[in-house]
Amino acid sequence: MTETRYDVLGLGNAIVDVIARTDDDFLAKQNLNKGAMTLIEEGQAERLFQAMGPAEIISGGCAANTASGVASLGGRAAFIGKVRKDTLGDLFAQNIRAFGVDFGTLPAISGPATARSFILVTPDGERTMNTYLGACQGLGPDDVAKEAVEGSAFTYLEGYLWDPPLAKEAFRKAAHMAHGAARKVALTLSDAFCVDRYRDEFMELLRSRLVDILFANEHELKSLFTTEDFETALAGLRETGALGVVTRGPAGAMTVTREETFEVPAFPIERLVDTTGAGDLFAGGFLFGLARGLPEKECLRLGALAAAEVIQHIGARPQRSLEEMAQQEGLAV
Amino acid sequence: MTETRYDVLGLGNAIVDVIARTDDDFLAKQNLNKGAMTLIEEGQAERLFQAMGPAEIISGGCAANTASGVASLGGRAAFIGKVRKDTLGDLFAQNIRAFGVDFGTLPAISGPATARSFILVTPDGERTMNTYLGACQGLGPDDVAKEAVEGSAFTYLEGYLWDPPLAKEAFRKAAHMAHGAARKVALTLSDAFCVDRYRDEFMELLRSRLVDILFANEHELKSLFTTEDFETALAGLRETGALGVVTRGPAGAMTVTREETFEVPAFPIERLVDTTGAGDLFAGGFLFGLARGLPEKECLRLGALAAAEVIQHIGARPQRSLEEMAQQEGLAV
Repeated sequence: MTETRYDVLGLGNAIVDVIARTDDDFLAKQNLNKGAMTLIEEGQAERLFQAMGPAEIISGGCAANTASGVASLGGRAAFIGKVRKDTLGDLFAQNIRAFGVDFGTLPAISGPATARSFILVTPDGERTMNTYLGACQGLGPDDVAKEAVEGSAFTYLEGYLWDPPLAKEAFRKAAHMAHGAARKVALTLSDAFCVDRYRDEFMELLRSRLVDILFANEHELKSLFTTEDFETALAGLRETGALGVVTRGPAGAMTVTREETFEVPAFPIERLVDTTGAGDLFAGGFLFGLARGLPEKECLRLGALAAAEVIQHIGARPQRSLEEMAQQEGLAV
Repeated sequence: MTETRYDVLGLGNAIVDVIARTDDDFLAKQNLNKGAMTLIEEGQAERLFQAMGPAEIISGGCAANTASGVASLGGRAAFIGKVRKDTLGDLFAQNIRAFGVDFGTLPAISGPATARSFILVTPDGERTMNTYLGACQGLGPDDVAKEAVEGSAFTYLEGYLWDPPLAKEAFRKAAHMAHGAARKVALTLSDAFCVDRYRDEFMELLRSRLVDILFANEHELKSLFTTEDFETALAGLRETGALGVVTRGPAGAMTVTREETFEVPAFPIERLVDTTGAGDLFAGGFLFGLARGLPEKECLRLGALAAAEVIQHIGARPQRSLEEMAQQEGLAV
């Protein structure tokens, strides 16, 4: 195996988050599905934008957040995703590059605007996402940069890529390309409703061993194995043969394989503000550790640390240097 | 005097803030004037945007922040300022209206883009602003809405209005209109360098009594009276006959008239994150109290409380309900 150019390459929807604080009454009035990611059309997006609280714009996107987390830890990261050449596309590109992430996907110069997710954050810290996919619908196999995929220790793919029409082809192409270069492929299930939409295809990705590492939270895992029982879902995960990484919010996180289970507690926080990006940053910390050859339990700790940073402020990108935080915790690599 | 429709009408530059954390080295390398507001052209703006850290976009603008603070306290507020009809103009309008501020100024449909201020926040919490005025240059006397000015207890004007070419005419028109309706006029000096640019005109506004209330921090006040000595500057302020409201950061704030001086300490905070908007929110709290007939010392306390909220997070608009905070502190109106 040749030397790697990147620790992690993320492939995902390139999205800016339009974020406002709200209360549960607003979610109820607007018929929003609390805690979930719901796809919306342009007209719905505009109505929600005008109805929601004072909005701020912060770059987001699941795999993009993960790549930013890897870079903030001092890792080498790249991202593939489609924006349009417009004000918010420029913001997305500036933000991810300023984190030190290589981002070279050509922006669309026509067609729908850069994607945005309207995120409502309730006082309990839960986030409710409503996503207009816009330019993400233009992501396709031609955007999969061979040298980036073949040079990355891990190619990280989001389940959300099943939503835009051509992106799953990009996903499969990248995964096969990574395996062809003897690299590893990771998938995050993204969202329990997303699993609901594409359960059979996600199971097939695991059965065919196109995915080596699966990231999921409890809800997504139960949805994948259509069970209400967490232990049953874990047993299903073990059977797939993949390395399972399961996040459980304040209950911590665990890795699961056929042979072993490791668990770590959640990293202590002062105040829960906004859970947006918690799973994304967890994956970033975990994969960074794995790429640097750390034992799984240390990787879990890095994931927990990165998630703890991001849930203590609004927005899904780190505000502090995760590398400095890791050093302070004796988790330096 | 007829009943008021608004407690405070703000007239100012309608700006979105493009904010990134940075360090002092970056400010030095870019030759940025730490703590000041510097005007920049479009090309400089683009270069700074690409060089700065990961950027977020949060609505700003001095008088607009003040109006948002008044609304967050439960007051009735309006704002006059010029955006262009574009993505960031839409964000500005959404944000201020979502605070409950009446904002009816027609956006420009051609010409320069919505104004943006590139704000660099250093670890000490200081902010360094670099502003591209864009669409603000289109604000003129025709934008001064008579019924808003005549219906506002206080018309609040920013010194920054001297930067775009036509806005000072709008300023003067609004001030005379307010006095014609027996309302009060407040001016904030905005920035020590802004005072440097327009010292004679600001002094003339005070001497001619077109301004009833002057907001300033220590630096701005010293700049106005061209002295290094704070007491000398205070003496100059007393002589103007205006009600002077002077903010001193962690040293608290005071009101000064010919006859009296009141002082309050700064409101205690957990952590200083970003001073952007501190003076704007102070003015909002103070004017809200004054509009509701509170004694000056209580007005100062409301100002200190509003400023304390906004400096504990990134961005110059309140994230918590200032009304609830005031109630908790026994400062309810």
